[in-house]
Amino acid sequence: DFAQIDHHRSLRKGFPEVIFGQGKTSEQIIEIMKKIIIHEEIVLVTRLKKEKAQKISSKIKGTQYFEDAKFMWFKKNEPKITGCGQILVMTAGTSDIPVAKEALLTAHAMGNEVESIFDVGVAGIHRLFAHQEKIMAAAVIIVVAGMEGALPSVVAGMVKAPVIAVPTSIGYGTNFGGMTALLGMLNSCSSNIAVVNIDNGFGAGFMASSINHVSVSG
Amino acid sequence: DFAQIDHHRSLRKGFPEVIFGQGKTSEQIIEIMKKIIIHEEIVLVTRLKKEKAQKISSKIKGTQYFEDAKFMWFKKNEPKITGCGQILVMTAGTSDIPVAKEALLTAHAMGNEVESIFDVGVAGIHRLFAHQEKIMAAAVIIVVAGMEGALPSVVAGMVKAPVIAVPTSIGYGTNFGGMTALLGMLNSCSSNIAVVNIDNGFGAGFMASSINHVSVSG
Amino acid sequence: DFAQIDHHRSLRKGFPEVIFGQGKTSEQIIEIMKKIIIHEEIVLVTRLKKEKAQKISSKIKGTQYFEDAKFMWFKKNEPKITGCGQILVMTAGTSDIPVAKEALLTAHAMGNEVESIFDVGVAGIHRLFAHQEKIMAAAVIIVVAGMEGALPSVVAGMVKAPVIAVPTSIGYGTNFGGMTALLGMLNSCSSNIAVVNIDNGFGAGFMASSINHVSVSG
Amino acid sequence: DFAQIDHHRSLRKGFPEVIFGQGKTSEQIIEIMKKIIIHEEIVLVTRLKKEKAQKISSKIKGTQYFEDAKFMWFKKNEPKITGCGQILVMTAGTSDIPVAKEALLTAHAMGNEVESIFDVGVAGIHRLFAHQEKIMAAAVIIVVAGMEGALPSVVAGMVKAPVIAVPTSIGYGTNFGGMTALLGMLNSCSSNIAVVNIDNGFGAGFMASSINHVSVSG
Amino acid sequence: DFAQIDHHRSLRKGFPEVIFGQGKTSEQIIEIMKKIIIHEEIVLVTRLKKEKAQKISSKIKGTQYFEDAKFMWFKKNEPKITGCGQILVMTAGTSDIPVAKEALLTAHAMGNEVESIFDVGVAGIHRLFAHQEKIMAAAVIIVVAGMEGALPSVVAGMVKAPVIAVPTSIGYGTNFGGMTALLGMLNSCSSNIAVVNIDNGFGAGFMASSINHVSVSG
Amino acid sequence: DFAQIDHHRSLRKGFPEVIFGQGKTSEQIIEIMKKIIIHEEIVLVTRLKKEKAQKISSKIKGTQYFEDAKFMWFKKNEPKITGCGQILVMTAGTSDIPVAKEALLTAHAMGNEVESIFDVGVAGIHRLFAHQEKIMAAAVIIVVAGMEGALPSVVAGMVKAPVIAVPTSIGYGTNFGGMTALLGMLNSCSSNIAVVNIDNGFGAGFMASSINHVSVSG
Amino acid sequence: DFAQIDHHRSLRKGFPEVIFGQGKTSEQIIEIMKKIIIHEEIVLVTRLKKEKAQKISSKIKGTQYFEDAKFMWFKKNEPKITGCGQILVMTAGTSDIPVAKEALLTAHAMGNEVESIFDVGVAGIHRLFAHQEKIMAAAVIIVVAGMEGALPSVVAGMVKAPVIAVPTSIGYGTNFGGMTALLGMLNSCSSNIAVVNIDNGFGAGFMASSINHVSVSG
Amino acid sequence: DFAQIDHHRSLRKGFPEVIFGQGKTSEQIIEIMKKIIIHEEIVLVTRLKKEKAQKISSKIKGTQYFEDAKFMWFKKNEPKITGCGQILVMTAGTSDIPVAKEALLTAHAMGNEVESIFDVGVAGIHRLFAHQEKIMAAAVIIVVAGMEGALPSVVAGMVKAPVIAVPTSIGYGTNFGGMTALLGMLNSCSSNIAVVNIDNGFGAGFMASSINHVSVSG
Ligand SMILES: Nc1ncnc2c1ncn2[C@@H]1O[C@H](COP(=O)(O)O)[C@@H](O)[C@H]1O
Ligand SMILES: Nc1ncnc2c1ncn2[C@@H]1O[C@H](COP(=O)(O)O)[C@@H](O)[C@H]1O
Ligand SMILES: Nc1ncnc2c1ncn2[C@@H]1O[C@H](COP(=O)(O)O)[C@@H](O)[C@H]1O
Ligand SMILES: Nc1ncnc2c1ncn2[C@@H]1O[C@H](COP(=O)(O)O)[C@@H](O)[C@H]1O
Ligand SMILES: [Mg+2]
Ligand SMILES: [Mg+2]
Ligand SMILES: [Mg+2]
Ligand SMILES: [Mg+2]
Ligand SMILES: [Mg+2]
Ligand SMILES: [Mg+2]
Ligand SMILES: [Mg+2]
Ligand SMILES: [Mg+2]
Repeated sequence: DFAQIDHHRSLRKGFPEVIFGQGKTSEQIIEIMKKIIIHEEIVLVTRLKKEKAQKISSKIKGTQYFEDAKFMWFKKNEPKITGCGQILVMTAGTSDIPVAKEALLTAHAMGNEVESIFDVGVAGIHRLFAHQEKIMAAAVIIVVAGMEGALPSVVAGMVKAPVIAVPTSIGYGTNFGGMTALLGMLNSCSSNIAVVNIDNGFGAGFMASSINHVSVSG
Repeated sequence: DFAQIDHHRSLRKGFPEVIFGQGKTSEQIIEIMKKIIIHEEIVLVTRLKKEKAQKISSKIKGTQYFEDAKFMWFKKNEPKITGCGQILVMTAGTSDIPVAKEALLTAHAMGNEVESIFDVGVAGIHRLFAHQEKIMAAAVIIVVAGMEGALPSVVAGMVKAPVIAVPTSIGYGTNFGGMTALLGMLNSCSSNIAVVNIDNGFGAGFMASSINHVSVSG
Repeated sequence: DFAQIDHHRSLRKGFPEVIFGQGKTSEQIIEIMKKIIIHEEIVLVTRLKKEKAQKISSKIKGTQYFEDAKFMWFKKNEPKITGCGQILVMTAGTSDIPVAKEALLTAHAMGNEVESIFDVGVAGIHRLFAHQEKIMAAAVIIVVAGMEGALPSVVAGMVKAPVIAVPTSIGYGTNFGGMTALLGMLNSCSSNIAVVNIDNGFGAGFMASSINHVSVSG
Repeated sequence: DFAQIDHHRSLRKGFPEVIFGQGKTSEQIIEIMKKIIIHEEIVLVTRLKKEKAQKISSKIKGTQYFEDAKFMWFKKNEPKITGCGQILVMTAGTSDIPVAKEALLTAHAMGNEVESIFDVGVAGIHRLFAHQEKIMAAAVIIVVAGMEGALPSVVAGMVKAPVIAVPTSIGYGTNFGGMTALLGMLNSCSSNIAVVNIDNGFGAGFMASSINHVSVSG
Repeated sequence: DFAQIDHHRSLRKGFPEVIFGQGKTSEQIIEIMKKIIIHEEIVLVTRLKKEKAQKISSKIKGTQYFEDAKFMWFKKNEPKITGCGQILVMTAGTSDIPVAKEALLTAHAMGNEVESIFDVGVAGIHRLFAHQEKIMAAAVIIVVAGMEGALPSVVAGMVKAPVIAVPTSIGYGTNFGGMTALLGMLNSCSSNIAVVNIDNGFGAGFMASSINHVSVSG
Repeated sequence: DFAQIDHHRSLRKGFPEVIFGQGKTSEQIIEIMKKIIIHEEIVLVTRLKKEKAQKISSKIKGTQYFEDAKFMWFKKNEPKITGCGQILVMTAGTSDIPVAKEALLTAHAMGNEVESIFDVGVAGIHRLFAHQEKIMAAAVIIVVAGMEGALPSVVAGMVKAPVIAVPTSIGYGTNFGGMTALLGMLNSCSSNIAVVNIDNGFGAGFMASSINHVSVSG
Repeated sequence: DFAQIDHHRSLRKGFPEVIFGQGKTSEQIIEIMKKIIIHEEIVLVTRLKKEKAQKISSKIKGTQYFEDAKFMWFKKNEPKITGCGQILVMTAGTSDIPVAKEALLTAHAMGNEVESIFDVGVAGIHRLFAHQEKIMAAAVIIVVAGMEGALPSVVAGMVKAPVIAVPTSIGYGTNFGGMTALLGMLNSCSSNIAVVNIDNGFGAGFMASSINHVSVSG
Repeated sequence: DFAQIDHHRSLRKGFPEVIFGQGKTSEQIIEIMKKIIIHEEIVLVTRLKKEKAQKISSKIKGTQYFEDAKFMWFKKNEPKITGCGQILVMTAGTSDIPVAKEALLTAHAMGNEVESIFDVGVAGIHRLFAHQEKIMAAAVIIVVAGMEGALPSVVAGMVKAPVIAVPTSIGYGTNFGGMTALLGMLNSCSSNIAVVNIDNGFGAGFMASSINHVSVSG
């Protein structure tokens, strides 16, 4: 049997198992989705290529696919907002937006109010300060950046809120597929920062939701 | 002038600038401490070697030094608990304890109730389950591990709470000074996880406190 | 002459030379297979792409090809079971199954009873414990895992049997094509573990068979 | 409490928890040893520097310390031989011997007959063939090598027995502290090979013992 | 003969050969200094440890040694200011100051007006803006930073002047001895930036002087 | 809103924001170009693939595309020469020319007189000396080289002018996509050198222009 | 002008400039070939893809293309044998043959008697000894190997002749595109060995010819 | 027995086994030397620290130790010159001389006429051309360089003779202990070059001698 679905997960973690689409056939994904759908309100598939998404949509009615984020969901109802504050997702450049979208969709699916600010990288830092109010108001901030990955340090230096830094693979040469941004974020001189894997918008959204439910869990 | 103290920081971030002890002379640290002490309730020094700590203690009355954590504080009063739940710090091995201590001291200084469980690594996983109650009760969990760094994945799989993973440099050969543990944590198959720099107990404690104040900030 | 077939190998090693399919033309593989078939009961080809497999099948009757494992065999008879116990192959995720298949087919071809458990990764560790009986019964265990590669440590911590850990290239970003899983496995805090190359299901199956014949060799 | 001793380990694994000496104080080691000694026949300490060993010996009577292997044991009785065949430990050079000693002591402690051949590296390959008989007779072979790490491939090509390859940090420049030898061993063109961490003689001895008990376990 | 002094260099490059102190004996340095002094107004020695400096000072009268910068000079006269504008040297932290000093001394020796601003890293970015006037006035800016190395991007985004970014080895864990800062600087989203080797204050000062003489050379 | 155009940039930096074409859709680029064109004399797009360039050209009249440099500009007028001297762009091999072109176009667009010498790598060093006059005359020199990246050191050793070294990804095997050339340039034994990212002709041209305007800025 | 042909090279080096085909257009190659052909007996093009080779062949009569070696030559006459002994090219596996061919063709073109032995890797080391006579007779030996790259050490241990080791990118996972083989060769415990770049059959053939002409040069 | 001396080596290779001093005790070295001395004219010890050398000298009369090269020999007679031409050893800097010395001593011991030129690195390339005659006359050239390692490319571009490139660990920051120089040498655009391990003067001298005996061997 190719999949041991963790039906106990929504009890333990407050959210059902999410399907990692990469490296699975569309047949495998369909079968897993069907089994989860029986018990759950919502099911997410991440890292899902367009062709596989189309095959799945033709077999399971009611799925919704977001091409830039390579993200699919099937929802029985619109998620109720249960998180305590607003989750803000920021990007340094325009090219970082698909990763930000994956974070936004995940956080939304998990019951959070979400907001976004795109393309406010440090080469023109006044662009960042123009959004100061929104930034100060957020309960949790996700900062998505490629190249040198400097934006999370600057944002975290401005706020009390926890910042989740997401390095992206945007750049070339010594960006090393995002490793440079990742290393920059891990060595931040600001301290209210923690980091997730390169291009891992999903993990950032999930972690942000977990943080945003700290006072309401248990 | 060798230091531009950020006196505005406690307003912005809720906590005064913390002194990074490594690479500064004890004279420099003393001078910075004196300037901060005028305005603040508490001042922390991290990564402080014993010899420097002794020189500082002889010049500034009332400091307290924790040798294994290489950590010093000067407090006018005991920090008031303002965080919303309990911060739990766990380690995989005995040798990871100094890093855990740095996290515990930081989180305590920032107004959080803290708790710890040491030496419950995955080679004898029943040791972990013996503490299930304490683990389920925590608002935020910091998991400190060296070698293969597998413990945070397992812990995060058990709980709703956000987990901050701290890789340590414990191990040898291909542990690459903690890089192996770090990479393992970044690639966790659990999703309520984010990671800080190798041996960065301070950052983990700070981030945990920031998370633990999400609902009380603003 | 492009190949010096090691006809002495089955005497020395108990099994004929296995053909490494990658980087050889189908013409070269056909010629090598024909030369081996004269003297041996069985011949294996690993890392064989589908198109090459089809060309070979059209020239050599009786081959069997396993597409997901990229594995071909030609058998004169079904291999006799000569190994001392059962070889169990486990995977952390669904996407690790192709590598597990390569191990299963190799171990089967070399005269071993084989068994498998798929998709029991550490994010939902109770799934693992559900199979405890099968795990305790195995003589040799192969554990296949990508991402952070934590499963082998946990399994090895539960048993006396030797564990062969196989890192896979499943994951993204800082998984570094399997390097992260490999490093995790090499730094395991369990000690009845040894590791093979990334995605090397063949080597794991071969080593497991060698172990499973320790008491019956010589 | 700084250590959660895994007293259940000898039941589960057939051997008590082994103490990783590096990064622990001698006080911590003494306390852990005392707790284990109550329940077990034998206790091992690995990676133990001379000065710590002397402090421990002065507090616990009857320990034995092996300086080159940085290894200590305390035995109530001489270990009974329970393993099925002979474990042979080979080295490529003279400088690899300390790692080989750690493997020999571990395998001996775990109830195995052990044998050794030192300094038979591939630059003078006839030296290897002079020992062919001993090599063919072994049930399990541990091959310890630094620099280019080529010896395990050659040995594994000669025998049916499983080979555990141990890279050492011996060499300079691009040996990268043993990484070159490790990579060579992972990419061996022989297939009855698996690899442990750099300089990990302990793990190799443990794994060899586990293999040598496959037919007698359960 | 152990040194082929490039006496032609001051003609070609406008400044005599500078002695790289690391890896040379004090005897070798003294002999080379003596040969250069015959023909030149000034001679510099970089990366010079204190003990060697003392030996040299005792043999050659009139040298001056700067311990934190590990820098020595021997000047017949005070260098004339020939550069076109001001060279500003900035640091992110207090611990980066020794590298900044090496740059300041080099630029001064080569005939430039120099200025400095220390400890204005991005975690408290308002500290940077407080110095805006001095920053806008500089002809060339050297920015020295360790950890995530984000300061050069922010500074370069504010000005027209060319920025030379100097990564330092300040930090720990994944700072990789300055590699993280270096990579960040190479991937800057600002474009009036070029980078020198880790901790290479000398090279930065030299390059800045070369730039500051562009309009006056030839 | 996917792009926060930095309209203030030409005031601050003397040149409008340049569009990084990679990872943006042609629709996004068109929209950004249109917004910039309203206020500026010139707009550049870098790292632009041919297909996208064609789509853009069909929507915005008057653009010009340079296929080998993957570079587009839209100019209202020919840029006025404002830089103080000549910028010389040199390459080691023929295959490095596309990167050199990107630098030449950028420097031209920013108001500089430009000149070039191609294919004068160090394997036939007399080729270099044949151009000595042109080399001595340049105000700023950009040296583009792949493989071992040795040319910048040799050129910088000949002149007073600042040298910007650009590593390229030309080569194979251990060239590591340009990393080898980059490292060589960072470790140059000449000192009037600073380095930009691999294949970053744009950054080199921009920095060279910034240097060439040092005496005319402010 | 895109190419500065080094017409002086055959005087200096005894052989005309060789064209590096990778990264050049077929038009560029044709033009360079035409210019070299005027003065020289022979011209070589390396790393030349099939499609480019066909375009060139249609424009320049008399070229000969070797597809597996990606190698083209144009010869006015058959090269005269001027080297002092025989150059032997050996490979560890069948998949290493294309790189060996590039070496054989280069050495032949440069006036050497060449010989080859393929597929004698260390997993069946008796295959190597079967060719002992040919091996002992060679003046220079080129050993081509991928995976762990152990063959050069063993061969060099058998002979007085200089051995040029060529790592190939054959393998998978931790072979790191040939880096593992390269590192193994650099750390050889045999001493009559030097190494060239990964897959650099051309360089190996050239160096071997240079060695084989040592006594006849000058 | 800790050492299996390869007494057959001088027959096979023309020179007795050389002792790798690093990682052996002086007792071990003394015992090995004594055994070799019985059968051989000369014995070499490399990588030998001063303290060990002194202990050895006090036990074995007639040894000679070269401190900078960390090299010892014991000779019954002065080596006869048997090599065909002159071996020239060059260095880029003064700090590379100890490695060059190791090469010179080895080549001398093996029966070669040797010559040297030190400190002619590429930052002042005219220094190199001043020695053109000596360079053209050499049969084999060893070029020793740290930092960017560019000298071997330039030298090899000037001559027909084979060049052995030796990277050294001289430098700092991104020199990565010699890796940068090594990579530069492996990617040389000159082709009569092969490379040995970082700081491996011994191997370079041995290989050069092997080359210099090509026409006289067999
Ligand atoms: N998938 C595989 N991974 C590693 N080694 C293999 C694999 N398949 C076959 N081999 C080994 O590769 C060698 C054959 O190499 P070759 O001569 O290139 O066919 C044999 O020694 C096999 O045992
Ligand atoms: N030299 C060693 N290398 C790797 N693991 C070891 C070594 N020595 C002991 N161990 C394992 O490390 C674990 C003990 O870790 P700790 O709790 O830090 O003492 C046990 O599971 C031992 O089996
Ligand atoms: N080829 C290039 N390499 C590096 N940076 C660039 C390049 N082209 C444009 N830029 C910079 O990238 C930034 C724009 O990023 P984005 O918002 O993603 O368009 C601007 O600051 C540009 O100056
Ligand atoms: N396959 C090859 N690998 C390394 N260098 C080569 C190769 N083929 C030609 N070369 C060298 O590359 C240089 C020519 O570079 P280019 O000017 O780009 O054609 C010449 O010095 C050749 O000797
Ligand atoms: Mg933008
Ligand atoms: Mg423990
Ligand atoms: Mg699953
Ligand atoms: Mg030996
Ligand atoms: Mg500061
Ligand atoms: Mg050329
Ligand atoms: Mg073969
Ligand atoms: Mg010098």
